[in-house]
Amino acid sequence: MSHDIDLPDLTERRVQTEDLLQGHFLRVVRDTVALPSGAQSYREYCIHPGAVMIIPLLDETSAANPTVLMERQYRYPVASHLIEFPAGKLDPNEDLLHCAQRELMEETGYRAQYWAHLGCIHPCIAYSTERIDIWLARGLTQGQQSLDADEFLTLLPMSVTALQDHFLRGELTDAKTVSGLTWLEHYLAGRVQVQWLDAAGKVFP
Amino acid sequence: MSHDIDLPDLTERRVQTEDLLQGHFLRVVRDTVALPSGAQSYREYCIHPGAVMIIPLLDETSAANPTVLMERQYRYPVASHLIEFPAGKLDPNEDLLHCAQRELMEETGYRAQYWAHLGCIHPCIAYSTERIDIWLARGLTQGQQSLDADEFLTLLPMSVTALQDHFLRGELTDAKTVSGLTWLEHYLAGRVQVQWLDAAGKVFP
Repeated sequence: MSHDIDLPDLTERRVQTEDLLQGHFLRVVRDTVALPSGAQSYREYCIHPGAVMIIPLLDETSAANPTVLMERQYRYPVASHLIEFPAGKLDPNEDLLHCAQRELMEETGYRAQYWAHLGCIHPCIAYSTERIDIWLARGLTQGQQSLDADEFLTLLPMSVTALQDHFLRGELTDAKTVSGLTWLEHYLAGRVQVQWLDAAGKVFP
Repeated sequence: MSHDIDLPDLTERRVQTEDLLQGHFLRVVRDTVALPSGAQSYREYCIHPGAVMIIPLLDETSAANPTVLMERQYRYPVASHLIEFPAGKLDPNEDLLHCAQRELMEETGYRAQYWAHLGCIHPCIAYSTERIDIWLARGLTQGQQSLDADEFLTLLPMSVTALQDHFLRGELTDAKTVSGLTWLEHYLAGRVQVQWLDAAGKVFP
């Protein structure tokens, strides 16, 4: 923030890390931390490799109300079918754009000609290191999905207004997807300057 | 969704639950699940009691651009100072409105006369049961904060446009707060019908 200089430093400093869990999927640690007061406390959190989310502009015939490519999946921890933007975790040493292209292709079968980075979110700041980088994708062409063996999803093209209606009915509850909608709304309102890249990651004029 | 009837049932059914971790703060389990294909897989996730987030309208002199009461905290898992709406976890058997009132008072010192439920989000659908219910609060009066011993935060009143600027600079990265901004923007645009309650939870005409 531009006025950071006026704000207190509340940094908590690591004293010690203890491994609590290495599951098939989740890794959890407990850090002993020094608080700003000098006292000590514990922070328990999941170690996450980072992820990307893609906002795929499937049809821009209506510039103000494009069609975006959504997914509908069953999410076991919340026992619901949810509508989401395509997303997935970074592989080791994978760069963000490569991950976005791979996840879009694996989950939806689509490739995109042009890519722009919008921003990032932290879904779970109290107990996960996860960061999700959000990409806008356009110039889509259809190919073959290649889902993981335990991944089941339905592709759901929706206009932005239909997505907003879903949100306003209280049914769009995935926080990364709601955050993506916010970025998309500000983009469509002309409030976001983006830098388009081609599929090789080169700046596109 | 209104067209649920046309969409496939991708429900994953629990076969068995195994406790993986009971930390000071985090509880993690691993469920064996039956996939829609009939095959089995594992889902590991945090058990969370649920939470509330409050959007406190601090000054509505400008109806289109009210001042909201934000907090700035250091969030250890993401190693950053972040700006957030006030939020906190449900106590056992606590109702949502009581929790919202308690958290607003504890974290900010403010009480609100009127409350309206906006919606809910799931911050981390892949590995947490957490659900955050979002409340709008108005008619604020100041009192005394009572923070937990390991809780340090700075109160930061901001206009909605200042919050949007922070978002557009890419600095508002807490997904619950971005989701709250989305609800607030749609509310201010007149697209959300809310039911105001008084502080006792009675419908306010």
